[in-house]
Amino acid sequence: MLISIYMVAITAEAMSGALAAGRRNMDFFGVAVVAFLTALGGGTVRDILLGNFPVNWTQHPTYIYLTVTGGLITIVIARVMRHLHQLFLVLDAIGLVAFTVIGCNVALNLGYDTIVIVMAGITTGIFGGILRDIMCNRTPQVLRHELYASVSLIVALLYLTLLEQGVGEDITLLAAFSLGLLLRMVAIRWNVSLPVFSYSQERWD
Amino acid sequence: MLISIYMVAITAEAMSGALAAGRRNMDFFGVAVVAFLTALGGGTVRDILLGNFPVNWTQHPTYIYLTVTGGLITIVIARVMRHLHQLFLVLDAIGLVAFTVIGCNVALNLGYDTIVIVMAGITTGIFGGILRDIMCNRTPQVLRHELYASVSLIVALLYLTLLEQGVGEDITLLAAFSLGLLLRMVAIRWNVSLPVFSYSQERWD
Amino acid sequence: MLISIYMVAITAEAMSGALAAGRRNMDFFGVAVVAFLTALGGGTVRDILLGNFPVNWTQHPTYIYLTVTGGLITIVIARVMRHLHQLFLVLDAIGLVAFTVIGCNVALNLGYDTIVIVMAGITTGIFGGILRDIMCNRTPQVLRHELYASVSLIVALLYLTLLEQGVGEDITLLAAFSLGLLLRMVAIRWNVSLPVFSYSQERWD
Repeated sequence: MLISIYMVAITAEAMSGALAAGRRNMDFFGVAVVAFLTALGGGTVRDILLGNFPVNWTQHPTYIYLTVTGGLITIVIARVMRHLHQLFLVLDAIGLVAFTVIGCNVALNLGYDTIVIVMAGITTGIFGGILRDIMCNRTPQVLRHELYASVSLIVALLYLTLLEQGVGEDITLLAAFSLGLLLRMVAIRWNVSLPVFSYSQERWD
Repeated sequence: MLISIYMVAITAEAMSGALAAGRRNMDFFGVAVVAFLTALGGGTVRDILLGNFPVNWTQHPTYIYLTVTGGLITIVIARVMRHLHQLFLVLDAIGLVAFTVIGCNVALNLGYDTIVIVMAGITTGIFGGILRDIMCNRTPQVLRHELYASVSLIVALLYLTLLEQGVGEDITLLAAFSLGLLLRMVAIRWNVSLPVFSYSQERWD
Repeated sequence: MLISIYMVAITAEAMSGALAAGRRNMDFFGVAVVAFLTALGGGTVRDILLGNFPVNWTQHPTYIYLTVTGGLITIVIARVMRHLHQLFLVLDAIGLVAFTVIGCNVALNLGYDTIVIVMAGITTGIFGGILRDIMCNRTPQVLRHELYASVSLIVALLYLTLLEQGVGEDITLLAAFSLGLLLRMVAIRWNVSLPVFSYSQERWD
């Protein structure tokens, strides 16, 4: 079940990556690379940080084909996707929660400390987007806009708390997805965002 | 033989990295760092992704000295290099094929899936240039211009197909280098490139 | 003792990262991420390159809390910090030496070649700043300005030479910190920098 959600999520993330590549006029190969990195880069960074080899996608060729294909199809259907805006926001929110929960589980199974487990969840959730933006030579949006990374943090905390309380896996997952999607929808609908730190002083440090 | 070609190739890549650093007015230390990353960064990313520790260059100090020296010498001979333009294009093409083949072999020996082997080859071939461009704060050129990454892909596919058909190592290598160089020369001579995906819509995803 | 210095140093580095994030108008989450990466990113890259798992900070939650808290406190005290300019330059110099020495030790204990040990020291010393600048979408300053990375190199060479000569750990550390701080202060006071390589030729390589 979580795996099915994950496959839909990485495809949606790959498509978002492909659009970002298109904004930089990349060629088809670049589109495929950025799509792949956006979708699977977060999990890759997590696996490397945790020393969790072999890296997940190297054992699941399906994920590779899915993200590369998703990226390339985006080139054809980019015009249509504009009208699916709402759908993509929902898929992206589902992806954020799925990535976070899966990331937490990987670190949990490796016996890491709680704070590291939370960070593994967040890393899986947001680092694909960070890599996408680095590849497209722009400041990572996830560190600047909206309630996005924070939702990943809250979902990770809720997930771990419920698990620790002995709540069943099913209810825990349901709670994580419900809260995560609710927060994302609220954030998008009312434009909620974290306060911003603006520091205009010239560099002296 | 492949090792000799590899040493020439990393030196040429280091020099290309040094020129990119020069365009950003880096100091001598920055030039050495970017030269090193351009030449050995692709193999480093590959080794980390494949969990192939120790990372290759940590066991071959020669490669480190060669790339750092190559980068620093570039500062002195930059003016002359302009006239060696053609030579560098050939060396770069040879490097691309050598990197690709070596990358495939590393993943092959570790028993990875075919698609991962191909990606290991491409990663070795193009990620040095991507790291160079990230360090120089520009959108990776390899994702935007010319038939470059695609040549790496085609070479990897040819190499693996011939090996699987039981063709000898020597002939396989000869075929890989011939096709790779031919494709690069054709791409440069007639300015062949992959189609570009341009997407100008404002960010909504 | 070295650990206490290290904790002060990562806090100071985290604060420098937070200011850089503030210059890009990042939100509080982004500030925490960049603070963490600036302080602990160098050691992380070193551990990954050396295959030294688990990565250091995953075993020391204190470091995580310290850097994230340091980053967030910076938001509040940014105005005051302007007047502590001199203090921060000293803390940063101390951090550079501490990072370099610790990085050398990690590679030394893993039995790597001398040149790799030196590179592990430099990587620990400067890569946090490089990651900070990549996250803030600017060309890494450490590769462009002042005697900074070079001080890391000189400290690493001095440290290893003294150790090899059988000089005691205490005196070796004292010498490393004395020389490192002296060089940094001289570099800042008289604006000493490495020569710059400027190459304005259009891209042809």
